[in-house]
Amino acid sequence: MENVTCKGFKTAGVASGLKKNGEKDLGLIYSEVPATVAGVFTKNLVQAAPVLLDRERIKSGKCQAVIVNSGNANCCTGGQGKLDAIAMTRFAAYGLAISEELVLVASTGVIGQGLDTGKIEAAMPELIKVAVPEGLDDFAKAIMTTDKVPKVVTQQGVMEGVPYTVTGVAKGSGMIRPDMATMLCFVVSDIKISHDLLTEALLAATDKSFNKITVDGDTSTNDTILVLANGLSGATVNNPAQKESFQIVLDEVLTGLAKMVVKDGEGATKLVEIVVKGTLSDKDAKKIADTIANSNLVKTALFGEDANWGRILAAAGRAGVKIDPYKVDIFFDDVMIAKEGMWCGEKAEEEAAKILKRDEFIISIDLNMGQGSASIFTCDFSVEYVKINADYRS
Amino acid sequence: MENVTCKGFKTAGVASGLKKNGEKDLGLIYSEVPATVAGVFTKNLVQAAPVLLDRERIKSGKCQAVIVNSGNANCCTGGQGKLDAIAMTRFAAYGLAISEELVLVASTGVIGQGLDTGKIEAAMPELIKVAVPEGLDDFAKAIMTTDKVPKVVTQQGVMEGVPYTVTGVAKGSGMIRPDMATMLCFVVSDIKISHDLLTEALLAATDKSFNKITVDGDTSTNDTILVLANGLSGATVNNPAQKESFQIVLDEVLTGLAKMVVKDGEGATKLVEIVVKGTLSDKDAKKIADTIANSNLVKTALFGEDANWGRILAAAGRAGVKIDPYKVDIFFDDVMIAKEGMWCGEKAEEEAAKILKRDEFIISIDLNMGQGSASIFTCDFSVEYVKINADYRS
Repeated sequence: MENVTCKGFKTAGVASGLKKNGEKDLGLIYSEVPATVAGVFTKNLVQAAPVLLDRERIKSGKCQAVIVNSGNANCCTGGQGKLDAIAMTRFAAYGLAISEELVLVASTGVIGQGLDTGKIEAAMPELIKVAVPEGLDDFAKAIMTTDKVPKVVTQQGVMEGVPYTVTGVAKGSGMIRPDMATMLCFVVSDIKISHDLLTEALLAATDKSFNKITVDGDTSTNDTILVLANGLSGATVNNPAQKESFQIVLDEVLTGLAKMVVKDGEGATKLVEIVVKGTLSDKDAKKIADTIANSNLVKTALFGEDANWGRILAAAGRAGVKIDPYKVDIFFDDVMIAKEGMWCGEKAEEEAAKILKRDEFIISIDLNMGQGSASIFTCDFSVEYVKINADYRS
Repeated sequence: MENVTCKGFKTAGVASGLKKNGEKDLGLIYSEVPATVAGVFTKNLVQAAPVLLDRERIKSGKCQAVIVNSGNANCCTGGQGKLDAIAMTRFAAYGLAISEELVLVASTGVIGQGLDTGKIEAAMPELIKVAVPEGLDDFAKAIMTTDKVPKVVTQQGVMEGVPYTVTGVAKGSGMIRPDMATMLCFVVSDIKISHDLLTEALLAATDKSFNKITVDGDTSTNDTILVLANGLSGATVNNPAQKESFQIVLDEVLTGLAKMVVKDGEGATKLVEIVVKGTLSDKDAKKIADTIANSNLVKTALFGEDANWGRILAAAGRAGVKIDPYKVDIFFDDVMIAKEGMWCGEKAEEEAAKILKRDEFIISIDLNMGQGSASIFTCDFSVEYVKINADYRS
């Protein structure tokens, strides 16, 4: 949030005891007035109780508060899980003196264990008490699981001379994959916009951001993106041109957060954009980009800073798309490492090795067959990823 | 091979210098008479030069020798790669005084670097000289890359009172995935069988073995299974009943090798069978089994000996198959850890924890929707896997 805050929002994060290590694990977003809301949820058929509840409530198009816990995903918890999700919203609604129907909820953490709502109920008065306009950093910390850093992006826009703010916060950092929201992302804005236009803008922004990242090819049961717009800045979206102007600001916030999620992917040391072009269709390009971005052999080579373009080509070859290996060019940033499916030699290898040492770079694959293209952000796959995920529940 | 050998075959493995560490890297299989041959090759569109050559030559249905190198995959090597693959068969044919067309070839190792055929030519006389009926252990070592152990399985059968032998050798141990042959597998037998029946038997055996294993979800550019049958035992397959009898023996050899490949998967510490049942179709079951078996989050949890059934259910939920999470039962061996999508409690957790410590166990998922079923072998995903694949080319 830095020195900019969205008008009329208060946020907070406290430790309720759900996380065994005593760190912050309960977060609140509250708007002084009911806000317009739009949401995107996981496509996994196994969906956590809070996702199921939000899907129902969001139909009203209105939301005044979001309550989020980390440490327990409240997923695979059956009928009791649903009751627990409702209870979380009830505790918040009671403390805030608003309707329960105006409260949405999200959870992240371990799957398959019952949620201790007693801890949440006990912590609620304190959570509401400490909520302030500048509380988003605390909120960002409260929703982290294996994330190393809190993720907050703020952008300002101007509509008909009236300034407004869009601030987003997200948490990763495993179970990230395209065609999913990230695990959790919350965006607040003081712009005024209709539910339909906000939904349209959110879907478009998600396609350009969270649907273009991958960490480990797994997908979460809890993925949720919520956008709340309370209109208190006075800036208003009334027509398509204004919606496009707002879209640019929203895109920047979501794209910024999506990149932060990949960069802070479990065990990740590098942020790599995979750009595929020259395919017969964009769909083909997306399939190839997705296969390369999720290949364990490619990702471990990136961790090893090894310009192993053969693994990239091999991944392209199994993407289920017709390619001609003898036409494929591969680049690390601007260094061509393979031309027409063959190695460019020692000098190129040396240049590529330098690129591979960077924290961020682009791998481009040109199929030289047509005009299709696609891109996706991925990270490398490290020893640390395995350690994190082998020990996660202990 | 133990104390049983296939009549009329000689095998050998020597060090030609392709492997930097000086280990064996060149192997030969030679039959005293031309053998009937059948083959299965990679479905990756990027195919190594030896695979392209073998696909052509195997159409004759006859083969008398197979020359194999490790240390270099001769893949993504363009027109020169094809010439190099032909050269390998020519060196062998010359030394053995047989037709070049009767020699097949396979390569495994790094992709995208030119093959030093000079080393192979220089080592050929020695390789041919040391070939003996008991040489298969040396051959098995010569085709290893990151494999920790050589993989040889021998079975004997009897046809109309005449005994015969089937011996297979395989190497893994990354880039393994269903619907692919393993990286390399060679089977020799002294049975007499037609090319058509041998091909039919090989396809059936592959479906039950190498098409049911996964290590890391990647697929090789070089995968090859070859079966040579030279008929020198006197046992003959003439009719469907006899083919079925031979099928059982061949299945045992390939299934045995496939399990050894998973067990020796890169960095693997556990061999786990994923059994999915109760789906609407076998195809649905296969999709779910494949998704679970390739989930990094499931596989790292197996490495951590963590009975994290939530990750198993979450993987099932993203398999692209309609499921009802509230009907799913999950077992580790005979311990039910989740019933109707919910945790079975502390006692089940304790029992499951004991199963997870085993080297081999079964994870069963019952969708309780229909009669479909499928199974697949996978391994855990360890810190060692990442280390192996980050450093592979250095």
